[in-house]
Parts: sequence; structure tokens; C-alpha cells
Amino acid sequence: MTFSDRLAEAVRRKGPLCVGIDPRWESLPKAFRDAPPPTPTDDRLLTIAQLTATFCIRVMELVAPFAGVVKPQSAFFELLGKWGFYSQQAVLQRATAMGFVTILDAKRGDIASTATAYADAAFAGCKIGDVTFPIWDADSLTINPYLGRDAVEPFLAAAKAANRGVFVLVRTSNPGSGLFQDLKCDGKPLYRHVAAAVAEWNASTIGECGLGDVGAVVGATHPRELVELRAELPNVWFLVPGYGAQGGTAADVRAAYRPDGLGAVVNSSRGITFPFHPDDPDWEAKVVAAAQKAQAELRG
Amino acid sequence: MTFSDRLAEAVRRKGPLCVGIDPRWESLPKAFRDAPPPTPTDDRLLTIAQLTATFCIRVMELVAPFAGVVKPQSAFFELLGKWGFYSQQAVLQRATAMGFVTILDAKRGDIASTATAYADAAFAGCKIGDVTFPIWDADSLTINPYLGRDAVEPFLAAAKAANRGVFVLVRTSNPGSGLFQDLKCDGKPLYRHVAAAVAEWNASTIGECGLGDVGAVVGATHPRELVELRAELPNVWFLVPGYGAQGGTAADVRAAYRPDGLGAVVNSSRGITFPFHPDDPDWEAKVVAAAQKAQAELRG
Repeated sequence: MTFSDRLAEAVRRKGPLCVGIDPRWESLPKAFRDAPPPTPTDDRLLTIAQLTATFCIRVMELVAPFAGVVKPQSAFFELLGKWGFYSQQAVLQRATAMGFVTILDAKRGDIASTATAYADAAFAGCKIGDVTFPIWDADSLTINPYLGRDAVEPFLAAAKAANRGVFVLVRTSNPGSGLFQDLKCDGKPLYRHVAAAVAEWNASTIGECGLGDVGAVVGATHPRELVELRAELPNVWFLVPGYGAQGGTAADVRAAYRPDGLGAVVNSSRGITFPFHPDDPDWEAKVVAAAQKAQAELRG
Repeated sequence: MTFSDRLAEAVRRKGPLCVGIDPRWESLPKAFRDAPPPTPTDDRLLTIAQLTATFCIRVMELVAPFAGVVKPQSAFFELLGKWGFYSQQAVLQRATAMGFVTILDAKRGDIASTATAYADAAFAGCKIGDVTFPIWDADSLTINPYLGRDAVEPFLAAAKAANRGVFVLVRTSNPGSGLFQDLKCDGKPLYRHVAAAVAEWNASTIGECGLGDVGAVVGATHPRELVELRAELPNVWFLVPGYGAQGGTAADVRAAYRPDGLGAVVNSSRGITFPFHPDDPDWEAKVVAAAQKAQAELRG
């Protein structure tokens, strides 16, 4: 089964909600943070990384009825250093075991064999002699297109070989995204040129669902562009950040769906994983309620 | 001392050579790879990560007389998974202890608090309550500008607070870099717009050496653009990849230097760290010879 077909199945079963796993230690429920006071040793950071993974896994259990896709944000694991990557691996492994389609949000981008190293870490694993060691084993990875064709192609090749997908940054959800993405080049903004390249890369990867394995990141905070890009890229999966905490509404993101209801996964991170005050003993119920509400809104 | 002044001191003492640390297991000397055959357990990957760090540290000892700057490439550590990040940390720690200025080549880029998480991992460390845990503790980090202003600014703020630097991708060295970087926007190519933003971000960070803490990545494989960008960005440090194995010559990179000899660090990775066949028992002498030759060429 291709990546795009697995994603289609997840969206058909549970709707387009993607839960972003952005674990910020200071936002974790008190119960997780109530450990001995920190001392400046690595072991304490290991404990923190383990508790972080435990929290992320509990959140995934809570949201599983309402979302078929999760998106761990690598930056928050990296901030816990070498131990954080234990947690990143544990969270991805558990997500896969629970049946989620996973998007590793690492926004990687580099050239030639360096890009291949990132892509192998994300997908096929590390090959040493005849043995392959799984590393992140994610279903898909976000990538940055700035370095150009031969920086993107190693990711595409690695994804194809391992039956995985990528999401290329096209139009990001942040307020300052226009600085370069909106520059007019030969009559259209830069992000439309990136979109055209995505369409080209995606064309040879179309699965049975009618969509391909090379997706685009398009922010919910730009509803007009979402309409425009949906028309331009009918066979491309959109990963839509910016819904919820960043201000995009369910009505804004509707333009990302195709008439068959497929075509977009809509990410919410803080809005679902941290809808509580850290001291709130009732945090689990609030996560469930937030996920349920988002699922209903996005499906409605 | 600012980042730019520390970099200037390194270049004055040893010349502009930056040694790129890109450890590919299959290229390591036989002596390092002669360990028991791999079995698919994590422990074997730990051994490989440890041997990789040992190799990188030995290379840094060998090149120390000829280069003041090293640039570990994060992708090759990430390919070894969670254990690889032990090695990345060990290599960065040792590089700093040996007096190198370090550039963590991770090409990070994300928005708002996510960008801050990457930047804190790179520079100040992970703050938990009143305790700060060092993570990579690099002197500088490469970053990708595609996401725009509010994606770059958290890196600038974190660098400023910790007295570190960044290198923003402007014109990369790969053959396919032009796909987006060369698009003409309002009369000039995209990379010139990025260059103008770098000039603006750098302006408030000028150190005693006359250069600032916000550098630009400009490939040696584009000598004409190097001339143009040197003129446009007189106070900006250039990190110049593409010298050596990628085809840029010492003559090509000369345009990156200012009249005072400062202004550029010129990276060579494979050309210096792997100028030998893996079976060659004399590999250390070849690394020394390659570094010595590169230092002489780049200073000449």
C-alpha cells in the first residue's frame, strides 16, 4: 500500500485531524513534572526525556479515537539533547504500533548524500554492511525546498524506495512567511513556483486514492491561497498547519479538501495536547474533549 | 568576545580553512570498522556511533594545526539514530575543548517557539526550572531562510543572547540550487533578496573585526555570484562550501575574502577527512597532507 493510500484510509476512518506532538516540558501536567528538583547532570535530563515520552504516548492513547495521524515535532525532542532522541524514537515506534500514520516534522533539507542520510534516518534506516537498523521509521517527513532540485530528489528517491511520503514546505502558516514566499517571480509568487515543482514530483506517485506521496505544507492562515493551491494541485496531499491556536478556523481549512473529502490533513498541536493548565488534575478529559471537538469541526 | 571576533581570530591564526566533519561509516579507515560483524541490535549501533566519534576526534587532532574551524554535519550523526547524537555532542565538546570555532551544520528552520527550541538546543541549552543543561553548545548554526522573517528571528535572538552566530543559506553549492534560488523576483534573483535580508539582520551585530554574527552560506561553485555578494555584503561572514570535492578551486573562493583577508571560511569535507581508501594503513598522513595543502592553497 502506498503512503498516500494509507493516509487516505486514516482520513476516511477518523477524519482529517492530525495531532501535533510538541512536548514543551513547562506545559506538561504537574503529575509529570513532580519529580526531584533538577540537578545539572545528564541523568536528570534522561528522566525528563522519559517523562516527556510517557506524556506524548498518553496523549496519543487519548486522541486515538479522533485522529488517524500524528506529527511529532523534532525540535522539542532535540531540545532534550541526545536523550530527547530516545523519546522521539519511542514516540514514533508507539505511534506506528497504535496504527497512526506518522509525520516526522523535522523540515530537513540538504544536498546529495547528506540529504540521503537524513532521508535514510527518517525512512529505511541505517545500513551497515548487510544489516539495516531502523532509526525514526516515520511514514513521512517534512522537507524544505530552498536548496533546489537535487536537494529534494534524494528525499523523493528514499521515500519511493521505502514506500513513504514527504511534505514539502510551500506556504507556511507564520505571519512572516511572505518575506520570501510572496516574492513575485516571473509573474507569480515564489510559493507557486514551489507548488508547481511539487506537482511535478508528485505526478508519478499517484496511488489508488487518486493522490500521491509528495505532499505540500500549506498554512490554514492563508485561506485564499489554500483555494488557489487546491485547484492547482488536485492530486497533492496538503498538510495544513495553523488550525486552532494559530488562528485558522475549520471553515478556513475546508478549501483544502477535495470533493471526495480527501486531500488534507489538518494539524493542531497546542490546541489538543495542551488545552489545560499544568496544575489541572483533569487534563486527560480536556485533551479528549479538544480532540473530539476538532474531529467534529473538521469533519462537519 | 563576539562570535565574529572569535571567528576572525581563528582565521587570522590558521587561515580560512574549515574542516567539514561528515562521518560516513563505509568510508572510515578499516581499523575503525574492524569490529565484530553487525547484528540487528541497538548495542551494535552504539559501538558504531562511538567509533565514529573516535574517528572524528582523531581527524580534528590531525587537522588542528591547519584549520581553526570545524563543521560537523548533523545528518551523518542523525543517521546513527539516538546514539549518533551522543557522538555529535562528544565531537562538538571536544572540538570546543581543542579551541576550534564550531559550526553545527544542521540547516534548521521552523517558526516561533519551535525555532527557539532548535536555537536553544544549538546554543544556550535546555532550561528546566533554574538549571540549564548544555545540549550542542555550538558556536554557530546553519539555518534555512525559506520560512521567512519570524522563522529566522528566533535564531538571531538566541544567538545574540548566547554570543553565538548563524549562517543563513543564501546561494548553495549544489548543481540544482538554481531551481528556486535563481528565480528572478522584482528584477533580481531570489538569493539576492535573501542576501539583502542577511545584510539587514547582520547590521546590528558588527564586532571589532568589522564583520557581524549573521553570516551567509555561498557556494564556491558560483564564483561570479561570490564576487557580487562580497560587494553587496561587505560586513558579512561567508561560509563557503563546494571547495575541493565539489569542484570549487582556491582561485574561485578568493573572491569571498575581503582585502584584510577576513570574511570567509572555506569548507572542505571529504577532501580532507577522506583522502584515503578505507584499507590504507597510512590514512592519518594523508589527512595531514590534505589539510596542509588546503591551508596553503587557501592562504596563498
